[in-house]
Amino acid sequence: MADNKKMVAEITSMEEDFAKWYTDIVKKAELIEYTSVKGCMVIRPYGYAIWENMQKILDKMFKDTGHENVCMPMFIPESLLQKEKDHVEGFAPEVAWITHGGSEKLEERLCVRPTSETLFCEHYSNIIHSWRDLPKLYNQWVSVVRWEKTTRPFLRSREFLWQEGHTIHATAEEAIEETEKMLNVYADFCRDALAMPVVKGKKTESDKFAGAVSTYAIEALMHDGKALQAGTSHYFGDGFAKAFGIQYTGKDNKLQNPHQTSWGVTTRLIGAIIMTHGDDNGLVLPPAVAPIQLVIIPIAQHKPGVLDKAYELKAKLEKAGIRVKVDDSENSAGWKFAEYEMKGVPVRLEIGPRDIENGECVLVTRHNREKTVVSLDTLTRQVKKKLKEVHNGLYKKALENREKRTYRCTSIDEINNALNEKGDGFVYAMWCGEEACEDKVKELTGAGSRCIPFDQENLSDKCVCCGKEAKHMVCWGKAY
Amino acid sequence: MADNKKMVAEITSMEEDFAKWYTDIVKKAELIEYTSVKGCMVIRPYGYAIWENMQKILDKMFKDTGHENVCMPMFIPESLLQKEKDHVEGFAPEVAWITHGGSEKLEERLCVRPTSETLFCEHYSNIIHSWRDLPKLYNQWVSVVRWEKTTRPFLRSREFLWQEGHTIHATAEEAIEETEKMLNVYADFCRDALAMPVVKGKKTESDKFAGAVSTYAIEALMHDGKALQAGTSHYFGDGFAKAFGIQYTGKDNKLQNPHQTSWGVTTRLIGAIIMTHGDDNGLVLPPAVAPIQLVIIPIAQHKPGVLDKAYELKAKLEKAGIRVKVDDSENSAGWKFAEYEMKGVPVRLEIGPRDIENGECVLVTRHNREKTVVSLDTLTRQVKKKLKEVHNGLYKKALENREKRTYRCTSIDEINNALNEKGDGFVYAMWCGEEACEDKVKELTGAGSRCIPFDQENLSDKCVCCGKEAKHMVCWGKAY
Repeated sequence: MADNKKMVAEITSMEEDFAKWYTDIVKKAELIEYTSVKGCMVIRPYGYAIWENMQKILDKMFKDTGHENVCMPMFIPESLLQKEKDHVEGFAPEVAWITHGGSEKLEERLCVRPTSETLFCEHYSNIIHSWRDLPKLYNQWVSVVRWEKTTRPFLRSREFLWQEGHTIHATAEEAIEETEKMLNVYADFCRDALAMPVVKGKKTESDKFAGAVSTYAIEALMHDGKALQAGTSHYFGDGFAKAFGIQYTGKDNKLQNPHQTSWGVTTRLIGAIIMTHGDDNGLVLPPAVAPIQLVIIPIAQHKPGVLDKAYELKAKLEKAGIRVKVDDSENSAGWKFAEYEMKGVPVRLEIGPRDIENGECVLVTRHNREKTVVSLDTLTRQVKKKLKEVHNGLYKKALENREKRTYRCTSIDEINNALNEKGDGFVYAMWCGEEACEDKVKELTGAGSRCIPFDQENLSDKCVCCGKEAKHMVCWGKAY
Repeated sequence: MADNKKMVAEITSMEEDFAKWYTDIVKKAELIEYTSVKGCMVIRPYGYAIWENMQKILDKMFKDTGHENVCMPMFIPESLLQKEKDHVEGFAPEVAWITHGGSEKLEERLCVRPTSETLFCEHYSNIIHSWRDLPKLYNQWVSVVRWEKTTRPFLRSREFLWQEGHTIHATAEEAIEETEKMLNVYADFCRDALAMPVVKGKKTESDKFAGAVSTYAIEALMHDGKALQAGTSHYFGDGFAKAFGIQYTGKDNKLQNPHQTSWGVTTRLIGAIIMTHGDDNGLVLPPAVAPIQLVIIPIAQHKPGVLDKAYELKAKLEKAGIRVKVDDSENSAGWKFAEYEMKGVPVRLEIGPRDIENGECVLVTRHNREKTVVSLDTLTRQVKKKLKEVHNGLYKKALENREKRTYRCTSIDEINNALNEKGDGFVYAMWCGEEACEDKVKELTGAGSRCIPFDQENLSDKCVCCGKEAKHMVCWGKAY
């Protein structure tokens, strides 16, 4: 196990420095590599395969709910970006500007899309005329650019990959229903594919998307007690439609403005996986999105029959739809154990000459290092069971961490005591609805409002800050 | 059929104006919509679904040949673009330049990738150290930007979608083998998925990719006799490796430069499909990439049992993996016939009360409008047979068009006569290898060199232009 220790020693421990632990993992597990452009990264094969698995699952969920994929241009003319007042104020300070095509100066600057509401609106205004043209339920998988000052791989980068859903409906009711439906799709995806519990809620006024009537979000709690916004869904009312002159003739033959939504999740979810499930041995991947679900490590692989058996098992498991890799490299078994722990492979299968003789092998689950000797006759079933165990184990652990770090407080002192004594986490506390109090809670405790959870509790009748009548229970926290 | 005629009348005929016929189709079949940024288009759901089907097939072919997907940033710093001399000369005149991030001027301009060799090279120089790190077989699905003056949907746009494969190998032999292998993958894809015959060959020196040692291409002949470059594969030697300082320690413990390739196909292939298979009734789609492979048109759909039957057949066919749509809208059957002919759906199924009574339905194949009455008992098998027939029929028709329009010539006069009398096409003629003759043939006939076909024929010993000793048979043609 000397090799094993050596590998592990290469990662900073979570306790010692969580931020460094995080960047160690993204590099050492070969998820990304830096480039000479600040805030832009190479997503390497192992990282990109995680994203591809996410895409496959989400894309099916979108299509099953009636959405179609499209592709908008990446450029937005300055005048188009400016059409909706709040939207341009929110995004103009952080866009990248194209001024020249080849050696010629452009007549009008173009920005690289930071998000595509304006492009979809221009398109809608061209193709929507009658109630028969509604709804349009669109999505696109692209990258967007926001010129962030401080950047971190996956969590905040100048270019990132995402999907952006954009829909347009005849009525406000339909659009609101869509906004909520897609937030639920995201929450289900986080639970079922990423083993990540989330709090569903509504953003406060000050925290809405630029141009939205209301923004819904899912908020996850990371291992270190900081909150991470994992996905958002926006209801726009008819504000964009009015700004862009999108009108349709209703069944009543009258011209009216349609209602819109947009919703998105990004490669940030890879960061969320790392900080939700990872440990001091590296990445821990939820089976649904793991590029390799099971790695086979042959023991004494030079002995006759061992590698043959390893490849036979691989073929058998792959036939059952499991993503398998055999590592038959010259590295020691100990080195391989550490390597695939670092890469977060959910299940490891060890098989050597004696195991083959006995018709069995050893399965080790990554998240708890539990070893089970299983018969080769029932292997497929056992592996599927183990993958389910890993998923459930990860979800349970993440939920326990969140519950342990969720504090219900009725005063600023209680909030500060909880955060100081027990560490960062979600703070549930009542709020009067005034922005001044929202700001003050953040100033006094460091915890900003994450969302107004849909699941409301009545912790008190009074705002935790001003003592006036409370309107909502807010989930507060320090955020990534 | 009044409706039908009306729809059809909306498209310009191919004979009358091929270019207008083309743009009519891309608009009327709802493949694209223009935007306010010249040369940038919205790819609409029906067009994007064709691309998604292409991606699915190609991505599997790439993965089956050992390639992994990655994602590079979209920005290239000016200094990075300039590292390889030929490459920057080829691309700098047509890139879009970012000069500002938000309100701040950038210290160094960034261009939006026109292609990503330089980014891959920078990455390789970070991750390749030993022969153990080779080869890397990478691919990415992204969009790129080239500031073209004249633009046409799919064929030449300022932003287009593509895949770019980038590989790096220990030896020149391996890299050359890769370059050829991927050209064959493209040719197989065109034949088996797009029903499109292509000529495989090598580009002449003057027509190589900027920075390449050699460029291979597949060339297809469109319905109007013009050539379309459908895919390219480049061998770089170690030129980029030297320019970017990429070195590895070989098994002999000596430092050496690796050898590289890149290869790509783009959304241009959608344009190729239109111009290879389309007719005066609209688009004709090869079944493998058609978003809808079979459309069910219920006849007298208000009669009891008709729609139920239509949906029952849909479910049955979908279970067999066929992509099916039922159009149960209020439009007339005639309107629907014209609509799905316009959209190029390979097979139409008509079913009405009498058909149901007789336990049969009518299948109509798009490319030849052939009607077959088939028993519902054997429907799945019959539909699969029809889809195969459409594919084979399309391929045969395209091949016949190409053969009819391929002229073997031994003099400039013969070339001009052939092109004038029989119309544009591929001209096969011998060449001495001198750029001056290449230019002169183009000047005198309008047909430039498309490629030096791998399948060489000895038409004469003399160059068609200067009469000196011929080195190669060249495929000449007017190009998109």
